Amino acid sequence: MKLVSISKQGRNALGVAAANGIIIDIEEALQAVKAEQEVPTTVTAVIEGGDAALAALRSYVDALPVDGGAAYVRGESDIEWGPCVTEPNKIICVGLNYRKHAEETNAPIPEYPILFNKFNNTLTGNLKDIAVPKVTEKLDYEAELVIVIGKKTKYVAKEDALSHVFGYCAVNDLSARDLQLRTHQWLLGKTCDDFSPLGPYLVTADEVGNPNDLWIKSTVNGEVRQSSNTSDMIFHCDEIVSYVSQHMTLVPGDIILTGTPEGVVLGLPPEQQVYLKPGDEVTIEIEKLGALTNRFVADQG
Amino acid sequence: MKLVSISKQGRNALGVAAANGIIIDIEEALQAVKAEQEVPTTVTAVIEGGDAALAALRSYVDALPVDGGAAYVRGESDIEWGPCVTEPNKIICVGLNYRKHAEETNAPIPEYPILFNKFNNTLTGNLKDIAVPKVTEKLDYEAELVIVIGKKTKYVAKEDALSHVFGYCAVNDLSARDLQLRTHQWLLGKTCDDFSPLGPYLVTADEVGNPNDLWIKSTVNGEVRQSSNTSDMIFHCDEIVSYVSQHMTLVPGDIILTGTPEGVVLGLPPEQQVYLKPGDEVTIEIEKLGALTNRFVADQG
Repeated sequence: MKLVSISKQGRNALGVAAANGIIIDIEEALQAVKAEQEVPTTVTAVIEGGDAALAALRSYVDALPVDGGAAYVRGESDIEWGPCVTEPNKIICVGLNYRKHAEETNAPIPEYPILFNKFNNTLTGNLKDIAVPKVTEKLDYEAELVIVIGKKTKYVAKEDALSHVFGYCAVNDLSARDLQLRTHQWLLGKTCDDFSPLGPYLVTADEVGNPNDLWIKSTVNGEVRQSSNTSDMIFHCDEIVSYVSQHMTLVPGDIILTGTPEGVVLGLPPEQQVYLKPGDEVTIEIEKLGALTNRFVADQG
Repeated sequence: MKLVSISKQGRNALGVAAANGIIIDIEEALQAVKAEQEVPTTVTAVIEGGDAALAALRSYVDALPVDGGAAYVRGESDIEWGPCVTEPNKIICVGLNYRKHAEETNAPIPEYPILFNKFNNTLTGNLKDIAVPKVTEKLDYEAELVIVIGKKTKYVAKEDALSHVFGYCAVNDLSARDLQLRTHQWLLGKTCDDFSPLGPYLVTADEVGNPNDLWIKSTVNGEVRQSSNTSDMIFHCDEIVSYVSQHMTLVPGDIILTGTPEGVVLGLPPEQQVYLKPGDEVTIEIEKLGALTNRFVADQG
């Protein structure tokens, strides 16, 4: 199942992506077609409601007529997209987690996952404009696979770790390199407003299968910059979830950004480094997870 | 005004600390004494409600009879304390921000604030037991002053920054040194469960005055380990809030941990380093903000 956030005047309502570019607006649907059991109306409620909430949603959507001109049947280009996870308790990032990306940045292959974070001010949706902050001159893209946690998780073994995952999505882990490297702690350059467009869809784990066998790519103004496969990760998704859970309790809705493959601006020879500027358009696409596109604009702040 | 969280079966209700060790349980009070206007019932509601919520609370509490045996009049030792801020959108930490602490750890004096984070799984209250995680052998204390943001804040000048602060409290910024230094990013060693006991009180800014003129100390089993003054900060509170707001939007309830003075275990010569163990009791005390005490126990996980 593919969940989306439909942004409605600042709040995020639940949508479900059906075939043929159709988005079902669950809030609108419930006004037109009564449900036999309680159906969640936000992405957060689906994640926190566990298997029962997901089953109720699935059964409601499966029975819903989607032909004809019902108000709840919307097109992908007709909705305003919110981030597909709206209020994670944690945004955990894994740094230098693709072998070739570690090499391109001249970093040693990490012995342990390198963890840092972003805050929720970074969350935004597919097709939203993003301001290039006036405090940076080195804004870089990073295509990444995101793990969305589905259960309270502490001390989970690698073998059981993926059963604690609700689903997956794509993110552009935007990074202001000058701020990121101003001190030895990366946070500052990772957490400017709107630095984590997330989506378009939150795809449930059953539809994804093995998260470490997906092609992943990014394009800037149509030109391919990153093209790899999640199999190049140094620490695979199961290892990451298990490792993190040895050190902190994960809760439903927590998201983990699993690192980016080679091909970012920072990895180019200095004379070829052209950072993002207003007018640029970046698309992140991951197999089974859809394409996430954002345009960059000037900072009006 | 001194706000506290009263932990009640997993949720946090609002209390107000009055004179003589009395805590007024606002929820209980409202059942006994009607309010003339809406009164907030959680710390979050006070912070997010702005000046009007604080004024309503103040006027209600000022008119409340606190003699006699009313059920809403409780003793400091009778309540279960929650973290005095319960659901911050961000926990931002400033590293190496006291001159003598930077020196004791042989770090250069930072040119810019060094920012990193902790997550909300670290929040706990005064007098709560804290498990020494089984994944560390080097658990260290850090006495710190915490800034609690009161307004949505972006691009604020240093001169106006403190007017965006709701209040202040103390924290023990617990740090697993072996995990903190396992990679170059400090997050892992900073965000184990219960690593940020916060409180006892959230004291409103008007009662604190200049946040950079407060003595600050920590004791371990009654022995003074840190004893300094917030005037030794390299970046003062107004500079920190202004600097952070140039890079991300701050929102009410965000908290900023402003760094620790010298005297932590990590700063001692290796042969004198004795890290925290089950049975130890640590108290953090800051002028005007009260004393925060926690006992350490073995990890049962």
